[in-house]
Amino acid sequence: MKIGVRRTPVRLSGFRFAGVRSGLKESRGRDIAVICSDVPAAAAAAFTTNRVQAAPVMVGLGRVRTGRLQAIVVNSGNANAYTGRQGLAAAREMCAVAAKQLGINERLVIPSSTGRIGVQLPRNRVKRGVRAACKALSPEGFHDALEGMMTTDAFSKFATETVALGRTAVTIVGMAKGAGMIAPRMTLANTAAHATLLAYILTDAAASAMALRRALALALPQSFNAIIVDGDTSTNDTVVVMANGRAGNPPLTPSSRNLAAFADAVAEVMRRLARMVVKDGEGATKLIDITVRGARNRRDAARVAESIARSPLCKTAFFGGDPYTGRVVCAAGYSGAVFDPEKLDVYLGDVQVVRRGREIVAQVERRAEAVIRRAEFSLTLDLHAGNARARRLTSDLSLEYVRFNSAYRT
Amino acid sequence: MKIGVRRTPVRLSGFRFAGVRSGLKESRGRDIAVICSDVPAAAAAAFTTNRVQAAPVMVGLGRVRTGRLQAIVVNSGNANAYTGRQGLAAAREMCAVAAKQLGINERLVIPSSTGRIGVQLPRNRVKRGVRAACKALSPEGFHDALEGMMTTDAFSKFATETVALGRTAVTIVGMAKGAGMIAPRMTLANTAAHATLLAYILTDAAASAMALRRALALALPQSFNAIIVDGDTSTNDTVVVMANGRAGNPPLTPSSRNLAAFADAVAEVMRRLARMVVKDGEGATKLIDITVRGARNRRDAARVAESIARSPLCKTAFFGGDPYTGRVVCAAGYSGAVFDPEKLDVYLGDVQVVRRGREIVAQVERRAEAVIRRAEFSLTLDLHAGNARARRLTSDLSLEYVRFNSAYRT
Repeated sequence: MKIGVRRTPVRLSGFRFAGVRSGLKESRGRDIAVICSDVPAAAAAAFTTNRVQAAPVMVGLGRVRTGRLQAIVVNSGNANAYTGRQGLAAAREMCAVAAKQLGINERLVIPSSTGRIGVQLPRNRVKRGVRAACKALSPEGFHDALEGMMTTDAFSKFATETVALGRTAVTIVGMAKGAGMIAPRMTLANTAAHATLLAYILTDAAASAMALRRALALALPQSFNAIIVDGDTSTNDTVVVMANGRAGNPPLTPSSRNLAAFADAVAEVMRRLARMVVKDGEGATKLIDITVRGARNRRDAARVAESIARSPLCKTAFFGGDPYTGRVVCAAGYSGAVFDPEKLDVYLGDVQVVRRGREIVAQVERRAEAVIRRAEFSLTLDLHAGNARARRLTSDLSLEYVRFNSAYRT
Repeated sequence: MKIGVRRTPVRLSGFRFAGVRSGLKESRGRDIAVICSDVPAAAAAAFTTNRVQAAPVMVGLGRVRTGRLQAIVVNSGNANAYTGRQGLAAAREMCAVAAKQLGINERLVIPSSTGRIGVQLPRNRVKRGVRAACKALSPEGFHDALEGMMTTDAFSKFATETVALGRTAVTIVGMAKGAGMIAPRMTLANTAAHATLLAYILTDAAASAMALRRALALALPQSFNAIIVDGDTSTNDTVVVMANGRAGNPPLTPSSRNLAAFADAVAEVMRRLARMVVKDGEGATKLIDITVRGARNRRDAARVAESIARSPLCKTAFFGGDPYTGRVVCAAGYSGAVFDPEKLDVYLGDVQVVRRGREIVAQVERRAEAVIRRAEFSLTLDLHAGNARARRLTSDLSLEYVRFNSAYRT
């Protein structure tokens, strides 16, 4: 784990944080995090659509329905997934221990877990850890909490935005973990998500739970649900938004004029976090920003972008730095989208490499190669079949990915 | 390319073969193959469902509709895919040159290509090569032809079966190439397939084109369409069946009593070839034989099996030899199939590792590990949601896969 030496201090009015070590991870780092609002906060959440839902996801789904939460308890090192009734009891216990320590209703506490699947949580260790974390809560504990969430992450992921709602400035702070098992397809509480991605979006804004749900629903498709690292959708993906109202703005509702500005800021925080997850994708050496335009409909555009983002042949070509796009065209072809291959245009960065269905990369090889060798580059396909578009961020498939995942146990 | 030193001689009544070198491959091996029946033969074929169809696929689709073919002309080193009108002209030219040399109607000749996508065929070289191959045709040329079809294949793939139809014994000979871009979803002429997989099934049986189509339709789902190496469905997948009648049996029709025995033998040849393709999967160190049973319907069973067969996390775990199946359960969960995770059973070989939704591998770790370290092993999931089942063969994802495909240009 590389953690930046210079950490930007992050504070948010009315929120306290802590991260402690309880002995769940082989790496011996912090493995329990607690995030707590001083007062009950309006809340919304989205969870994985994997049919195998981790115990904390099942518990969280029930609790967020009230639209109110006060604390989040997270452990890393163990996903508490595929652990049956015992796992459910362990997830509830994490929350109960925290609630007791904090003197709040346990139904205001939501659990999250990430790490190995199919192994029971060591409950005593977790209980001790949660108690210690609750005692350590502090407005300065942000980075400790972030560290407590990390598993295979090489760096910690956070983003902040400030936005004016009328005369009041509100702050949005996002924190996330995730590097592998990343292909989120999250939905709002009763909706759908992929990847072990955990993300918490905290704000001092005053907002109703419905307003938060609206903001989350707008932000998800352009952030976490638009990234694919390996294509494996986790059992544990969770995004929680909490607004504690400390900024004192007139509370946002779904019909507020200011909701759009707030939702934009939430989306911006989530997009930045999502990009960091791809940058930190297991073994990733490159970030590829795929845009598909000119599709018949959005579903077709997404199909083409995701087919490329999942293709091992495309991803190894990106790793190898090959500007020839035969594999990209092939992946578009088997995606299921309807288009005329003879009209397809493909661009690497701003260099056109396929024009109306003909590969012309030989004419621009040096420029195309310069693009694909960058640490970040865009790949654009124009299907010329309509007006719909989709965007997906993905990483390459490297030797390090295989080396790591053939040794690491999920 | 490793080619077995001891080649079993393969001959088939009324068929001649040749393979020559024309300079299309960097490896400098044979790159043009011709297969020719002495008389026009009944024929059926299946082609890729990729929307981007290679030029030879487009030409082949039209020609096989008549149900009669006499020769197959194949080149390796260049897929003649994504090459527009020029590519179509080149594919037709390959056939015309062969037809002229053989003194037969060019509509009885079908082309196949495999190799790089998006590059025009060097037509003069190909013409010279096809002419030379036609001149070299011989009943003993089987292995030369096989070699001419190979690209990234490490070994040549063929299988033979003999079956009694009433009093007449007929022989079926199958030859195939394929190691990467393998996830066939082929359909009969107007039907669907994945991978550059090329396979030719030749027989001296007498059969109508309709009987051959029936046999091919039965064999495909249990052979080539049931394998996934990398999950990339090629632009060029082709299977052709040709029956020249030399065995002198009463011709098979769709209503013949003997059709079932013949179709079984064709399926057996195709299954053996398909298994060889997986064994020779790019970088593969293991073959995993996945069975999903107890599914609500066949589509759900296939979804679960294919989700596991495509999952980079599962495939790297197979490579690493990890008997913990959290990633397998996760991949089943996001497959889209409907089942109750608490009823799921999972077996590695005959060792149960998940019982009714609980991972019990810790109790059988040594035995489970012994299974997953084999070069071939079975993985069985019982969803307990119905009676449908599906089977898929796949390979692991190794360092060598990434090393090879980040350097090799498709």
